[in-house]
Amino acid sequence: MVSVGVIGSGAWGTTLALLLARKGIPTTLWDHQPARAQQMQQQRENSLFLPHFPFPDAIQVTANIAEAVQQKDLVLLVTPSQKLRDNLRLLAPYISPQTILVSASKGIELNTLQRMTEIVAAELPRSRGRIAALSGPNLSREVAEGKPTAAVVASEQLDIADQARMILTGNTFRVYTSHDVIGVELGGALKNIIAIGAGVNDGLGYGENAKAAIITRGLVEISRLGVAAGAHALTFSGLAGMGDLVASCASSLSRNQQLGQRLAGGESLSTILQSTRSVAEGVTTTQAALQLAARYQVEMPIAKQLSLVLFEDLNPHQAVTELMMRDPKGELEGFI
Amino acid sequence: MVSVGVIGSGAWGTTLALLLARKGIPTTLWDHQPARAQQMQQQRENSLFLPHFPFPDAIQVTANIAEAVQQKDLVLLVTPSQKLRDNLRLLAPYISPQTILVSASKGIELNTLQRMTEIVAAELPRSRGRIAALSGPNLSREVAEGKPTAAVVASEQLDIADQARMILTGNTFRVYTSHDVIGVELGGALKNIIAIGAGVNDGLGYGENAKAAIITRGLVEISRLGVAAGAHALTFSGLAGMGDLVASCASSLSRNQQLGQRLAGGESLSTILQSTRSVAEGVTTTQAALQLAARYQVEMPIAKQLSLVLFEDLNPHQAVTELMMRDPKGELEGFI
Repeated sequence: MVSVGVIGSGAWGTTLALLLARKGIPTTLWDHQPARAQQMQQQRENSLFLPHFPFPDAIQVTANIAEAVQQKDLVLLVTPSQKLRDNLRLLAPYISPQTILVSASKGIELNTLQRMTEIVAAELPRSRGRIAALSGPNLSREVAEGKPTAAVVASEQLDIADQARMILTGNTFRVYTSHDVIGVELGGALKNIIAIGAGVNDGLGYGENAKAAIITRGLVEISRLGVAAGAHALTFSGLAGMGDLVASCASSLSRNQQLGQRLAGGESLSTILQSTRSVAEGVTTTQAALQLAARYQVEMPIAKQLSLVLFEDLNPHQAVTELMMRDPKGELEGFI
Repeated sequence: MVSVGVIGSGAWGTTLALLLARKGIPTTLWDHQPARAQQMQQQRENSLFLPHFPFPDAIQVTANIAEAVQQKDLVLLVTPSQKLRDNLRLLAPYISPQTILVSASKGIELNTLQRMTEIVAAELPRSRGRIAALSGPNLSREVAEGKPTAAVVASEQLDIADQARMILTGNTFRVYTSHDVIGVELGGALKNIIAIGAGVNDGLGYGENAKAAIITRGLVEISRLGVAAGAHALTFSGLAGMGDLVASCASSLSRNQQLGQRLAGGESLSTILQSTRSVAEGVTTTQAALQLAARYQVEMPIAKQLSLVLFEDLNPHQAVTELMMRDPKGELEGFI
């Protein structure tokens, strides 16, 4: 019987712990605050981020990071992307090089512009060769409710992807494998930018036609950056690209979508960030993506307009108008 | 000043007539029933298919097809796909070979398996070289409301696409050009199959994760058939492929989506068809697509399951379950 550790007890980390524990897999969920860990361990639910989903007995909650990672077959990394490196430094002394590490965080580190698995490889050099990334259209609440869901786990080592797939797959959670780690990670990170844009669209009442155009053009610029960074183009047509993008843009369960709606309503970024506990990854990802776009010299017009809305107080209506009013031309000009 | 005829006064034909007339273009809207044409001409709205959108003075409604097509610079064909050929035979004696013909119908003719522009070329051989197809994420009601919308007009003759683009483009309706007629037409037709599937998903309460998986896998099988039929793969990543698919699956304004929801609720296809005036193109397109798939020897698992639901009374829950429970494997197996 395998055992699993989950680093990070936000909505997604808690959901993944639930998923595993429901299969009977002993799962240790780590929260960095001892009081919160103790509360969850006693209440048998995460009342802050995933209320009303009682923990099976197989879940143990701890604030002791050694306990969360020692002698585990697999450790899931589900922290905010800007916190991953710090947490890896905390767990580094305790983790075995035999343990498979699966990043389920969707973001890019500011300044270094590293993907999550690049950070893992840098901080845990002995674990190289046993690292994977999990992504896909996976709204936490729906997964916790047992609604049918598909995901992708990517690793440069296909046997590692396959082992992770077998541990994570459940009756209603179908996991596919991929060896395009770059594409799977960038798809998951970059879609949050477009999800903010979709939220702005919804907040302005612009409807499904305009949102479909933003999603379509958004995937084009995500793919363009991804391919320049070494990803396979087809990955962006898959679950971790288009699939994740569509789910995030459709749902008001998406934090990035919600943030966009509030921007459209006239709230400033600082006001919104002060009033929410959970992290909308799209904000830092917009900054990181534009830095990557400059490095690889690719255009990202939607990310660019959105950064003006987020950080320079550009009126959201004007931002969307400027995107729509670009001179029409051949849709695939430069491609075919 | 140009003048335009619109053949077909359903929601989309009426919306396109509104769009043109609002630009001041004299537009003749044709309805095959004299009583209906007269009623619209007097009431100055289409109370049956697009109520509450008053006609500008530039719209004239007629049941005289000669009046609708004679001396027009451009004629829009917006009939149900299975009626296009009959209507072309009616208008053939009156149309000038100088007139540009733009199909805005989204379907495939049963038995012949021809696309709409193939039917135009067959029935109006003197018009070859002046034929185009209009497609994209264009929910009629949103376009009529003036919500920002993007579309694609495709022609093998780029100057024809360009002329059509200039006539159709408005402040809130941005038209791009393409020369991939096959891709643009098949994208618009085949997405209706997946929209029915998305409606089934919603009707079963399966949520956004599962719907995103259906949309993603749906676009894969649409693209596979399209490429086999001669389309360019990238077209399916554009507005007429992914864009139209996303809008149709998102919105309860989509007739195909609504049909799927009612199937999920346990109604039979015949009951649903008897109770609706407008045509859900996805039903005949599912049949035609499977015939095309057989011709080109490509797999379309979603269309296949859906045809069992539509025509063989397969339980919708079982259909979706079988799609989800296919053995997980490499997501892009066979591609990369």
